[in-house]
Amino acid sequence: MIFVFLSVNWVVNAQTKTSDMERFILVVHGGAGTILKKNMTAEKEKAYKDKLKEAMKIGYDILKKGGTSVDAVEATIKILEDSPLFNAGKGAVFTNDGKNEMDASIMEGKALNAGAVANVRYIKNPISLARKVMESSSHVMLTGKGAKKFAKENDIEIVDTSYFYDETRWNQWNKIKDTKEQKMDHSDPSPDLPEGDRKNHKDEGSQQPFFDIEFNAKTDSKYGTVGAVALDKYGNLAAGTSTGGVTNKMYGRIGDSPIIGAGTYANNKTCAVSCTGHGEYFIRSVVAYDISALMEYKNMTLKEAADEVIHRKLPKIGGSGGLIAVDAKGNFTMPFNTEGMYRGVVKEDGKIEVFIYKE
Amino acid sequence: MIFVFLSVNWVVNAQTKTSDMERFILVVHGGAGTILKKNMTAEKEKAYKDKLKEAMKIGYDILKKGGTSVDAVEATIKILEDSPLFNAGKGAVFTNDGKNEMDASIMEGKALNAGAVANVRYIKNPISLARKVMESSSHVMLTGKGAKKFAKENDIEIVDTSYFYDETRWNQWNKIKDTKEQKMDHSDPSPDLPEGDRKNHKDEGSQQPFFDIEFNAKTDSKYGTVGAVALDKYGNLAAGTSTGGVTNKMYGRIGDSPIIGAGTYANNKTCAVSCTGHGEYFIRSVVAYDISALMEYKNMTLKEAADEVIHRKLPKIGGSGGLIAVDAKGNFTMPFNTEGMYRGVVKEDGKIEVFIYKE
Repeated sequence: MIFVFLSVNWVVNAQTKTSDMERFILVVHGGAGTILKKNMTAEKEKAYKDKLKEAMKIGYDILKKGGTSVDAVEATIKILEDSPLFNAGKGAVFTNDGKNEMDASIMEGKALNAGAVANVRYIKNPISLARKVMESSSHVMLTGKGAKKFAKENDIEIVDTSYFYDETRWNQWNKIKDTKEQKMDHSDPSPDLPEGDRKNHKDEGSQQPFFDIEFNAKTDSKYGTVGAVALDKYGNLAAGTSTGGVTNKMYGRIGDSPIIGAGTYANNKTCAVSCTGHGEYFIRSVVAYDISALMEYKNMTLKEAADEVIHRKLPKIGGSGGLIAVDAKGNFTMPFNTEGMYRGVVKEDGKIEVFIYKE
Repeated sequence: MIFVFLSVNWVVNAQTKTSDMERFILVVHGGAGTILKKNMTAEKEKAYKDKLKEAMKIGYDILKKGGTSVDAVEATIKILEDSPLFNAGKGAVFTNDGKNEMDASIMEGKALNAGAVANVRYIKNPISLARKVMESSSHVMLTGKGAKKFAKENDIEIVDTSYFYDETRWNQWNKIKDTKEQKMDHSDPSPDLPEGDRKNHKDEGSQQPFFDIEFNAKTDSKYGTVGAVALDKYGNLAAGTSTGGVTNKMYGRIGDSPIIGAGTYANNKTCAVSCTGHGEYFIRSVVAYDISALMEYKNMTLKEAADEVIHRKLPKIGGSGGLIAVDAKGNFTMPFNTEGMYRGVVKEDGKIEVFIYKE
């Protein structure tokens, strides 16, 4: 499979026109949800935006230097996984038994190769493990201990569970661990709670977290999944998604993030998509592939297809969230049916734009 | 969610015309692969056909009496899970560490509800657990020990691992357990091996299994997944799939069977689909949902859409297997790009038809 991939790559590269070769784009998200400006502080906004920019700069440099969309997507997501701000990697929330279980997937649009991992612990960067599954195994999806075994055999970085310990996440979990309640990652602090920041929290021993606490999953949810989609100079699309799941989750639940076709999809004929939202609805709606299908079979534009799914089809069954998508021509869209979505875009001119609320 | 389901049901039932109310259909499969007539015996053919007929009769009776398509799909699949002939439930193959890990999923086409379980052990009927996840949890997909915990709390039958012990499966696994080789369930015996039957095998202590042994997964594979799709008298579609995975599988691999959109999909607007094949290709091609999308967005008939995917799109990336599908009008199709597929159909007249080879 890898051999075919490389040979197809050569043909595509050789046939790509010079004018097209300079076109590339990277779009990222850091989760959607009820992110209200009135509950934000300038410091918090800056922290999120700075981290998104840092991640995008890494991905941009890769694309600029002629790296692949898969390289850019992985590197960008790794930066977000390494930050405690987002519910993925380092910032993963705690399950019902006080552990972190993470999911990730990646897909490339040229040969339709894909890799995914679900319910993994001890993996510093689940997106890198997903890529390794795509490129170095005959499988698409590995889970749990088996995925860890594969990681060890393939030199993927394993870390102790203490790496994922985060006081804020731990406190989130401690408040609800004896209930059946589950929380969809972070949201803005309730207006009646005093606001603090993460640094102060640590310095002063306060129990008030910086970024995301306290919300009702039904009415006030925010989805901290991270994702990236990219088009590289060779006209190849890629998409990746990584998540820490939902706080206090039970039963080894798997959401849409590691499901190819639901949370992640890429196809050079159409688009690359990464989703963030209430995963169960995204699975039932096969969201990521549906956007590709609407483009391929109904000749919708990328924006039309994404709007159809996020603003019409998903709300019909009660699904909330958002997605980022790019098409093979370099068009992009970042729709969401929630209050906000951490998101950003950078094209070949290097101008990095980040957004949080509806614009 | 369940409340909405019931209220929609009432409206649909009330609006259904009498003429339509007598139309119903059930289609099943017991796996696709290189099933060659020259390697079959009359006894083996009869064993497979009899079991398929027994399963279909159960499902038919449910539909005839006014049961739902979900009831019929679950009951039909349970019969196949309870048989050692098929690689699901009782007949599940062994993983690399000598255990059985099973996957299953179910979806109903009215409210697009779905449930799935992956890598479950100790569950007598994974399809029933998948249904319980669909109807009694807020999740779509549960895995491993978490899924078992959910099963216990919801009175799903748990069995000891010895229940799944099957001498033939055990021997299949023993032959390759120290290798990295993986086998896609059963296939015909090599022509140079003497043929026996399962009964003789047990009685005489022979090492020659009855049904399916020895093949090369690349060139001679057979996929023992089972599945059922149905349209009930109320015009509601449902699809379900259950599998024991691949012999000697490692790394907690998950195939297409528990992936909504890949191995299983149902939507009253279009069709209900259950797949069997090389799971990785079915995931990357989002096979089950693709058939629905081709019908909805390109106005293809059920047969056109299924043929497009099985005979054109999947072979392009090297994917082998088959599927069964019914549409909302009661049309059905059972295409496969392998040598054979265990399959059968029964409509409202009660005439049960079963097939193995290309007709």
